[in-house]
Amino acid sequence: MTTLEMIEEKKRGAVLPAAAIRAWVHQVARGEVPDYQASAFLMAVYFQGMNGDETAAYTRAIADSGQMLDLSPLGSRTVDKHSTGGVGDKTSLVLAPAVAACGVPVPMLSGRGLGHTGGTLDKLEAIPGFRAELPIHEFLRIVQQVGCAIVGQTPNLAPADRILYSLRDVTGTVDSIPLIVGSIVGKKLAAGPDAFVYDVKVGAGAFMRTLEDARLLGHALVRATRANGKSASALLTAMDAPLGQAIGNALEVVEAIESLRGGGPADLRELVVELGGEMLRLSGTESDAATARARIGRVLDSGRAAEVFAQMVAAQGGDPHVVDDVALLPTAPVTQEVRAQEAGGVSWIDARALGDAAVALGAGRARVGDVLNHSVGIQLLVKPGDRVERGEPLAVVHAASGEALRQATEAISTAVAVGDPAAARPLIVERISP
Amino acid sequence: MTTLEMIEEKKRGAVLPAAAIRAWVHQVARGEVPDYQASAFLMAVYFQGMNGDETAAYTRAIADSGQMLDLSPLGSRTVDKHSTGGVGDKTSLVLAPAVAACGVPVPMLSGRGLGHTGGTLDKLEAIPGFRAELPIHEFLRIVQQVGCAIVGQTPNLAPADRILYSLRDVTGTVDSIPLIVGSIVGKKLAAGPDAFVYDVKVGAGAFMRTLEDARLLGHALVRATRANGKSASALLTAMDAPLGQAIGNALEVVEAIESLRGGGPADLRELVVELGGEMLRLSGTESDAATARARIGRVLDSGRAAEVFAQMVAAQGGDPHVVDDVALLPTAPVTQEVRAQEAGGVSWIDARALGDAAVALGAGRARVGDVLNHSVGIQLLVKPGDRVERGEPLAVVHAASGEALRQATEAISTAVAVGDPAAARPLIVERISP
Repeated sequence: MTTLEMIEEKKRGAVLPAAAIRAWVHQVARGEVPDYQASAFLMAVYFQGMNGDETAAYTRAIADSGQMLDLSPLGSRTVDKHSTGGVGDKTSLVLAPAVAACGVPVPMLSGRGLGHTGGTLDKLEAIPGFRAELPIHEFLRIVQQVGCAIVGQTPNLAPADRILYSLRDVTGTVDSIPLIVGSIVGKKLAAGPDAFVYDVKVGAGAFMRTLEDARLLGHALVRATRANGKSASALLTAMDAPLGQAIGNALEVVEAIESLRGGGPADLRELVVELGGEMLRLSGTESDAATARARIGRVLDSGRAAEVFAQMVAAQGGDPHVVDDVALLPTAPVTQEVRAQEAGGVSWIDARALGDAAVALGAGRARVGDVLNHSVGIQLLVKPGDRVERGEPLAVVHAASGEALRQATEAISTAVAVGDPAAARPLIVERISP
Repeated sequence: MTTLEMIEEKKRGAVLPAAAIRAWVHQVARGEVPDYQASAFLMAVYFQGMNGDETAAYTRAIADSGQMLDLSPLGSRTVDKHSTGGVGDKTSLVLAPAVAACGVPVPMLSGRGLGHTGGTLDKLEAIPGFRAELPIHEFLRIVQQVGCAIVGQTPNLAPADRILYSLRDVTGTVDSIPLIVGSIVGKKLAAGPDAFVYDVKVGAGAFMRTLEDARLLGHALVRATRANGKSASALLTAMDAPLGQAIGNALEVVEAIESLRGGGPADLRELVVELGGEMLRLSGTESDAATARARIGRVLDSGRAAEVFAQMVAAQGGDPHVVDDVALLPTAPVTQEVRAQEAGGVSWIDARALGDAAVALGAGRARVGDVLNHSVGIQLLVKPGDRVERGEPLAVVHAASGEALRQATEAISTAVAVGDPAAARPLIVERISP
């Protein structure tokens, strides 16, 4: 089928043959489809959708549009996690070492932040010397030696996704479930692990704002992964308020290290234990979910996860002493507390607004290519439901200048509402597991 | 609004502000909108549509994306006709001179054929010496002297349409009512007449296959034209069988001349009288429709329309003697009759198949840029409902070679069905008039 025929068929709601979708994606990867036709096709998919078979074929084609990593040298079932992106989400930094500490290799390909959501690689690069861009053979060697490694996507994995994603970004075709699934799962399949756990964030600070959308995405991610012969499950997790209390790269590393040593915020630990338990289960290491979760808890409390993290950091060129001395991480020149204007209960903490405030401070990117300041960010001191007195500190801003400090203080005052205290909300909203 | 914002708004079904649509179309005309964004926007419009205000603004913006002709030197109300394209549709060749013969100037900008539908300029160019591409001042001078002229679109009229149309053609966004209206009416508004009659063809040989689609298009054309301060009406006319009996450029000129002299096929004359009557009415020359139609009939019967046609042909460089001697037109080297395989009534004549057969003979273009053979084509000898005997000729093929003859004969045998005779169908299916 020509691209024009594919557009016409999809426009009228037809189900496209898997072979046609596959051939088309590979043509895109080879630069043979004019971008105006590709964008018209993507928009037709936005409106008409793709069924499970079409989505699986699209995903598979994105995966094998380039190199497919062979992880068999690692010698056992491998597992990875993907999050759809949230504010203050430093989970991967704790999760990968914790799961590896339980004996399951975690070869994690991760990304950088854009907009209000941060990126795992950006956080890790707050550690002096840390290298996120490594050649594949070095990446695999570290996983083999340490149990885990976290690196950036290499250009020869899923090249069709890079082309399609940059086109979607400028043509209003980002928010389409099959296209999102193709992008996420396509890259994951190319990276080669045997099992995947998806953390689908839902709420005002997430890409999926409604439970219905998050549920659709979660099911579609799991279905497309399994249709391509891999194990998968998904957790829908709350993202109204930020995860944990730190937002900003070095601040989040500090919080991750606390969690790796058995401390840190309760919600971060809960998410690590839940996702880690599921990863152990999917790897075949544990069959019972409660046992798997307990095992993750133990490697956090014993300090074994922190050890693996230090080894991984060292193997990737970073200074492993940060685990024992967070003062080695960069710090911001100016800090200031934001205080409650009135007494009451914390009724709302707007993750999205705080994410944007962190970007404005320099902790994130408004545009691709923006240079980050790893030291800046926001430390929340309260969580929804907490009781505060007038004048009590709500947050600490870490900024590069007095002007940035002033702007962030204003943004945080607006983002944290004090009134009737919020009732505690569950972090794990729903599970989609085999 | 940026193009991306316009895409997102239209995607969610919003009504776009007229100013935003206008600015966007003008940006397209200046080459400032990347084609991948333009095609995504056009596809969003395909799915979400445009309301009357949006369509009027889009149309107006296409019109004034370039030069707007000033027809005031012509000194009286001018009127033009546009057809959505059919098989054997030589109406303009008869209509323009007939209306001009009634004293109403007809400055007609016309097009070339593509696919199974022919183009008025291609037909006129079958006349030795005829020039369809004239500078604007010469075009207006001829209308002033003769009463009518038929020329091609000039590149400085509605440049946004050329860009958008060529993009729509390759991105599956042709069949959208507001986009069709913008293209047709935008060009017409730029050409400057005061009133327009639209001939919306409906049926298997037309662009609009169903009555519902044709009705939607007819109403949208009239609404967008009136919203821009011009008079308009539309006729929905049948296009299952070809109009008249000739298909192919020189053959159609012969039939048009017969009609201009008061003869020719009944359906062609009926359409000329109906459209011409409506044009007289919209021009303000006649207030009563029946009187207006009768007047068109008289200029055909008196030979006055044929005189104006001869003057127009001469003014545009063609040989006016063709009106008295059609043997001056090019003729095909080989001709052959196609005979009925069995006796019966003509139940169906497939306009679309005959249009395609004429293209295969060389009378039309399969692709833009194909060179035509003006002499070739098909002469039907029967109309739906006619009774034929076995062996009686159904059509005559005019071809450039024996092989082309053979192929066309086969196509015509399939396209003309003999069985139970078709009941007579009305040519004028519906009227949309003020």
